[in-house]
Amino acid sequence: MEKSIISRIDALREKMRQANIDATIIPHSDPHQSEYMAPHWHLREFFSGFSGSAGTLVVTVDDARLWTDSRYFLQAADQLEGSLIILMKDGLPSTPSINQYLTSTLQPGASVGIDAMTFSVAALNQLKSDLDKAGISLTTDFHPADGIWTERPDLPADKAFIHKTEYAGEEAASKIKRILKEVDQAGAGAIFISALDEIAWLLNIRGNDVRYNPVVTSFLFLAPEGSTLFVEEAKIDDDVKLHLSQLGIDTKPYSRALEFLEALPADTRVLADPTTSPAIVPVKLAGRMVAALSPVKLPKAIRNDIQIAGLRKAMTRDGVALVNAFMEIESRLAQGDTMTELEVCRVITRHRSLQPLYFDDSFGTIAGYREHGAIVHYEPDEESDATLAPEGLLLIDSGAQYLDGTTDITRTISLGSPTPEECHDFTLVLMGHIDLASALFPEGTRGAQLDVLARRYLWQEGKTFLHGTGHGVGHFLNVHEGPQSIRLQENPVALQPGMLTSNEPGLYVTGKYGIRSENLVLTVPALSTPDGGNFLRFETVTLFPFDTNLVDTSMMTDAQIKWLNDYHKHVYDTLSPHLSADAAQWLARKTEPVMKNPYNFD
Amino acid sequence: MEKSIISRIDALREKMRQANIDATIIPHSDPHQSEYMAPHWHLREFFSGFSGSAGTLVVTVDDARLWTDSRYFLQAADQLEGSLIILMKDGLPSTPSINQYLTSTLQPGASVGIDAMTFSVAALNQLKSDLDKAGISLTTDFHPADGIWTERPDLPADKAFIHKTEYAGEEAASKIKRILKEVDQAGAGAIFISALDEIAWLLNIRGNDVRYNPVVTSFLFLAPEGSTLFVEEAKIDDDVKLHLSQLGIDTKPYSRALEFLEALPADTRVLADPTTSPAIVPVKLAGRMVAALSPVKLPKAIRNDIQIAGLRKAMTRDGVALVNAFMEIESRLAQGDTMTELEVCRVITRHRSLQPLYFDDSFGTIAGYREHGAIVHYEPDEESDATLAPEGLLLIDSGAQYLDGTTDITRTISLGSPTPEECHDFTLVLMGHIDLASALFPEGTRGAQLDVLARRYLWQEGKTFLHGTGHGVGHFLNVHEGPQSIRLQENPVALQPGMLTSNEPGLYVTGKYGIRSENLVLTVPALSTPDGGNFLRFETVTLFPFDTNLVDTSMMTDAQIKWLNDYHKHVYDTLSPHLSADAAQWLARKTEPVMKNPYNFD
Repeated sequence: MEKSIISRIDALREKMRQANIDATIIPHSDPHQSEYMAPHWHLREFFSGFSGSAGTLVVTVDDARLWTDSRYFLQAADQLEGSLIILMKDGLPSTPSINQYLTSTLQPGASVGIDAMTFSVAALNQLKSDLDKAGISLTTDFHPADGIWTERPDLPADKAFIHKTEYAGEEAASKIKRILKEVDQAGAGAIFISALDEIAWLLNIRGNDVRYNPVVTSFLFLAPEGSTLFVEEAKIDDDVKLHLSQLGIDTKPYSRALEFLEALPADTRVLADPTTSPAIVPVKLAGRMVAALSPVKLPKAIRNDIQIAGLRKAMTRDGVALVNAFMEIESRLAQGDTMTELEVCRVITRHRSLQPLYFDDSFGTIAGYREHGAIVHYEPDEESDATLAPEGLLLIDSGAQYLDGTTDITRTISLGSPTPEECHDFTLVLMGHIDLASALFPEGTRGAQLDVLARRYLWQEGKTFLHGTGHGVGHFLNVHEGPQSIRLQENPVALQPGMLTSNEPGLYVTGKYGIRSENLVLTVPALSTPDGGNFLRFETVTLFPFDTNLVDTSMMTDAQIKWLNDYHKHVYDTLSPHLSADAAQWLARKTEPVMKNPYNFD
Repeated sequence: MEKSIISRIDALREKMRQANIDATIIPHSDPHQSEYMAPHWHLREFFSGFSGSAGTLVVTVDDARLWTDSRYFLQAADQLEGSLIILMKDGLPSTPSINQYLTSTLQPGASVGIDAMTFSVAALNQLKSDLDKAGISLTTDFHPADGIWTERPDLPADKAFIHKTEYAGEEAASKIKRILKEVDQAGAGAIFISALDEIAWLLNIRGNDVRYNPVVTSFLFLAPEGSTLFVEEAKIDDDVKLHLSQLGIDTKPYSRALEFLEALPADTRVLADPTTSPAIVPVKLAGRMVAALSPVKLPKAIRNDIQIAGLRKAMTRDGVALVNAFMEIESRLAQGDTMTELEVCRVITRHRSLQPLYFDDSFGTIAGYREHGAIVHYEPDEESDATLAPEGLLLIDSGAQYLDGTTDITRTISLGSPTPEECHDFTLVLMGHIDLASALFPEGTRGAQLDVLARRYLWQEGKTFLHGTGHGVGHFLNVHEGPQSIRLQENPVALQPGMLTSNEPGLYVTGKYGIRSENLVLTVPALSTPDGGNFLRFETVTLFPFDTNLVDTSMMTDAQIKWLNDYHKHVYDTLSPHLSADAAQWLARKTEPVMKNPYNFD
């Protein structure tokens, strides 16, 4: 493996020499700025051997370096061993940024070559500006893989399919009309969309191109006079072709998108989002581009009534599958079966796959036993796979894609008798989860304003978690989507009725355990008052109990205890009609009300 | 009065005609972008009759309009009556902005004239850009008052004086060195400071130019080669002159600042803050201006140990004065004396003025009885002055300038037997106050992240308050200062050790009562943990009890009750050694611990 990495980088350097390029940057990205992408785009992994979801390779004529963040320091060090690639630990004060490294290492007059298809407009502008100041030139049509990655996987060829209106809740024609109106108001005559989840939502189509992300690799040019989807012909069957043509959309090959943009009349004004468009787009559009945030983001995030009804059904099915899965795990452990983290993942996926409308998981299941739970992005593999024992905490973060909704849930359970420390920390996290889940807030409130509700009990003890508290979730689409979020960082997007967001505070004690409690919450109207205006609240739509063995009620307020008991009653009432007698009995036990110890007077 | 307003505006229109000006904008501001300013700058009041602290007059050839916000709708309507000036209710969706109004009313080719000394750089840039788009030209040297306001008050001539190092805690020379280092790092060779509180802090001088704001009207040009304070000579006595000359600062007349800037060598690079510099500055500096936020703002906000020691002493004196004042008010009411809101203000100011190092109040005392308390910026005057009765709520917001610190405190007290509704609302506000006061938070936390802690109990009932939860407070300087804040709106400045900020949630029930509970809190280090990093907390430095008659302990957590009792014990322990026996007894009663009703089991 290391040998082939070394020879690949050698070949890349030879290619750079021929093109008079002194350095190249190979990000982990595709022309759609996707979070997850098809193997065709795994260039960074091909040239470095590093398979993490975040990280960028930089190759100069005399060294090669890989930047990645703290989640991947261990994995990257492992995978880079013997490759001669230097690990750059992103986020440490001593680590320069890639742009700092390039401008301080290269001489004025040097040349950096990249493929502008894999950089966003915004990222390229920053790079260009930094290099300019250092007198370094930038070539944007350098394609590192060409001629070297001979066995590069093809572009995905899976069939696209129609996402039915009974699940989408709105005809594609109606969505297109809404979006074109916004395009017009932005002073443009057309829009060019690169983000795959935006295209899928807008056209009511789905695909199978990217594991866990039911998208169709394509670009969409949308205009009142006629629209074009740039997509491999093999992906489009007659049904989808008819669906598109009824929307006034023809298809052209995926690779023709750029020349199409270049050939547009000089007076065309095309809206394109600089955060998701490849950097080559403004080059091809020249003066015709209207840079603006995509008008698709917000409507996509706001569910209609049919989507909400579907989501509730998907959550019920997901809850039923989880009851069956957790019951199986518990009983097999009780019987003394050997269970590992990977087997836990398999059991959960199997039970979900038995449910109607199940399509796929929504991401790779995280099952982190004891100290593995403290590694936030841990996914077990054959090598790391730990065997469960009747003690310690197990963190399980999993989700599914159903045709009528996407789920994402984390539970932390105790496999034996929990320690007071485990109960204390679990309860701190749960109290934050509950305070956020039960908050009322005025219209216009942003996630960053509410984030502290999930963190404050941890903060009071000098504890914290560094990931976000909440991310948006798509509708039979990507499990991570914007534009809203609940995090430390400011995000100007207000939480609005119909948005689905995760509520997932956690705590990670290195070498010991990880705790995370995650439900999905729907923003809904709460009440209106003459003096206060309109208030919103969250409705928790995920249906599965928390492990009450880990709850220390003496730390909680009466209101928090009531929330937990009400939630558990709701879970039982909703799921039990769909469960076997055994499973219903199991769930009844798991959802028994908790109370303050009446004998504890201190 | 209305007659003279009409004739003043007639004279202004004649002046506009002579200068070929179609419209002029008269803001309530001075060349230093002060929140409060000397009467010399009260142009907007001179031309409109409206005396509120916020509002802008626009005069065209055929009408005159005054924009102000909801705090002043009633007062403005009243003061504008008969003046023919139209009230524009700022903040209502139907009200155009001033720039929208001008660009939609004036024809292309029209001309707007303003005095660029009273606009900030940022405000002028926005105006210029909006007018440009509409083809309207802008003249920046139109002076509305010249030749019309014949009895215009002179610039303030009060003496400046030295703010001693025993109060400032740092020599001016040391501050200047620190700031010049930052100026150098920003790529400039000098700095031009217009903000009066920045000049006062940096030079360790104070003055008496603006009621409640102990500043010296001046501009400061600071450079390693030699610095100049532009100030009226009459204001500078020999002591201050010597102090300045020891700092390498000479003085020139206030009016010479602009020509000085204009005459600087072409290669001088002068840092100036676009948010506080008058818009004429970049014109005079031409290409020599380096626009950047002032490097004085942050160091000014962060108190040193000597300032903190002084602040604690000032708070003790302030607490003693308030005990004496509230005791007098209570006993005179009990004796059946006629007490009014204005008399309450006089009593409080009198008791404060008896304290050592008292200089002035820090703002006009707000004493709002019953429904007056619901008017957030209510200040009693002869006309509105209400007589107190033994019932209802009285809101008192007041503060003082001591040589060693500035105070700002709000208490809401019940004059009779409070209603359950009053107690309920008071306790909601107090619980938010306590949660914010007792919060721990990691380094880097911004005020907007913590703001919800003060609001959440109100929000849970659909109640809210629209003002900020916390503003910065100067040190024997302006009672409102930046750069930190605790509010709904994002502000990127983190709360840092040494910052003094108010904690003042409230609730306003129109026609009934207003409630606000305000203490000042100092940000201090709390603890450090290996996994969580450094945490900060607030230390409450204001010393005066809350009215426990209004506290409903059944709504509060045990931790909140403990905070209140601990705070009251601290207030008693700190103040009682400085009180008469009677006053100490009074305070002992007011600070008796509260407890949950042990007989209340529901």
